[in-house]
Amino acid sequence: MPHRLSLNQKTTNSWPAAQAVDGCARAGIESIGLWREPVHEAGVAATARRVADAGLRVSSLCRGGFLTALPGPERDAAVDDNRRAIDEAAELSAGCLVMVVGGLPDGSRDLAGARQRVADGIAELVPYAASRGVRLALEPMHPLFCADRGVLSTLDQALEMAAPFAPETVGVVVDTFHVWWDPRVDDAIARSAGRIASFQVCDWITPFPSDALLSRGMMGDGHIDFRHLRRRVEAAGYDGDIEVEIFNAELWNTDPDEVLALMRKRYTDHVLEPRK
Amino acid sequence: MPHRLSLNQKTTNSWPAAQAVDGCARAGIESIGLWREPVHEAGVAATARRVADAGLRVSSLCRGGFLTALPGPERDAAVDDNRRAIDEAAELSAGCLVMVVGGLPDGSRDLAGARQRVADGIAELVPYAASRGVRLALEPMHPLFCADRGVLSTLDQALEMAAPFAPETVGVVVDTFHVWWDPRVDDAIARSAGRIASFQVCDWITPFPSDALLSRGMMGDGHIDFRHLRRRVEAAGYDGDIEVEIFNAELWNTDPDEVLALMRKRYTDHVLEPRK
Repeated sequence: MPHRLSLNQKTTNSWPAAQAVDGCARAGIESIGLWREPVHEAGVAATARRVADAGLRVSSLCRGGFLTALPGPERDAAVDDNRRAIDEAAELSAGCLVMVVGGLPDGSRDLAGARQRVADGIAELVPYAASRGVRLALEPMHPLFCADRGVLSTLDQALEMAAPFAPETVGVVVDTFHVWWDPRVDDAIARSAGRIASFQVCDWITPFPSDALLSRGMMGDGHIDFRHLRRRVEAAGYDGDIEVEIFNAELWNTDPDEVLALMRKRYTDHVLEPRK
Repeated sequence: MPHRLSLNQKTTNSWPAAQAVDGCARAGIESIGLWREPVHEAGVAATARRVADAGLRVSSLCRGGFLTALPGPERDAAVDDNRRAIDEAAELSAGCLVMVVGGLPDGSRDLAGARQRVADGIAELVPYAASRGVRLALEPMHPLFCADRGVLSTLDQALEMAAPFAPETVGVVVDTFHVWWDPRVDDAIARSAGRIASFQVCDWITPFPSDALLSRGMMGDGHIDFRHLRRRVEAAGYDGDIEVEIFNAELWNTDPDEVLALMRKRYTDHVLEPRK
């Protein structure tokens, strides 16, 4: 079986948490990336038990972050919510808590300020994350999402933000969709050694879909050289799970068991080394 | 009047070249960025005369490039077409020829190879451009367009590609839409001193429009801090025209004279220094 393959729950968006866990077990997939909303619906403790009973690893919990609000109640609420997310990641024994850092506040054009507030927020959360044994995983997002979702735009930038903290408490996410275009990505991955908390794969497809949030494709349907990036990530010492996270309306309308079968095949054909 | 303001013809897409020239003259705009297709329709010599008669500068000619094809007839044709574009830029006395370098060839995932072919193509074109006194302007494009339009993704990368050549023959374009998100953009602009061939402005708007190619907004409608970037560009010694280039379906359906009036107002309100 394709070991190290992990299903990020977003890829089978119609499945509640319990069904996603059962689907992985049925398909022989050993690891799952969970999302907080469906986990809340099922209950954190119940999900943790179900995952354990199925013998799955939790490669990541998505997501914390959204730390760009100006000081005030909104920011305080975001920090509190991140503490809850850390608690949940601990209870689920998640490999990391993926941090989507947030976009510009409404009406603001102060990108440098938003980025600084993210750094400040991470610093504020680190002691709590360390006390709970949870690794925060800073996710650089494609510059497409800089304004409204994630002001952390490159792996270099994520590494700079992570640098002041212990690698076991603040790591980075390498998501092929977000980083594949970056002329510096090979070097940045090399410098990520010891910091890679999550490696996620999905493809960049063209023509660019009309809904930017659902623009991700199954591996092999687009333009990304997955083998190249996987080799780089492995050369940097990463030997953890490889999570397939795809936001795509067509896939979401497909029978999730079929999606898992397709994902396994594409993982073998496009991510792993070719068979001899 | 707002001097240094230039109309890139794409902003008033429905106007043929002659009408765009006349529209600028009517609005007191001293400079225009031309596109090859409408110039071909009007005739290069006729357009050059009309521009001269109207007393306009040609801030740029769009566009050369598309140099990522594999060696063979398609690539040869692209190089030939770039030579013709250089001839046209010379005849129009254009400040530069904007180079949109091209995306990945169909079915290819070799991004590094595509980038190398761009560098090779520029090297091949430089002697001809120099002989005609034309400045090639390498345009880094938003990573959104990496797969299908421009594998040159950051200003740093454009500077590296330009470095082997004389600044008067190979410069770079700083287009706010393409570079605003880049955590390294301030430093990259500083290092662009002497290389900035064109400064283009338009805004990044959200929610992201359904047609990625028409996703640009009028200054002030989005998230970009234009003053910050203009100050950086000026600190790097650039004192040339500031071109407004906006691909936007709604603007294209607006009376072009109104678009010019709006553009002047927004240029004053969002790009220039605030009035004391």
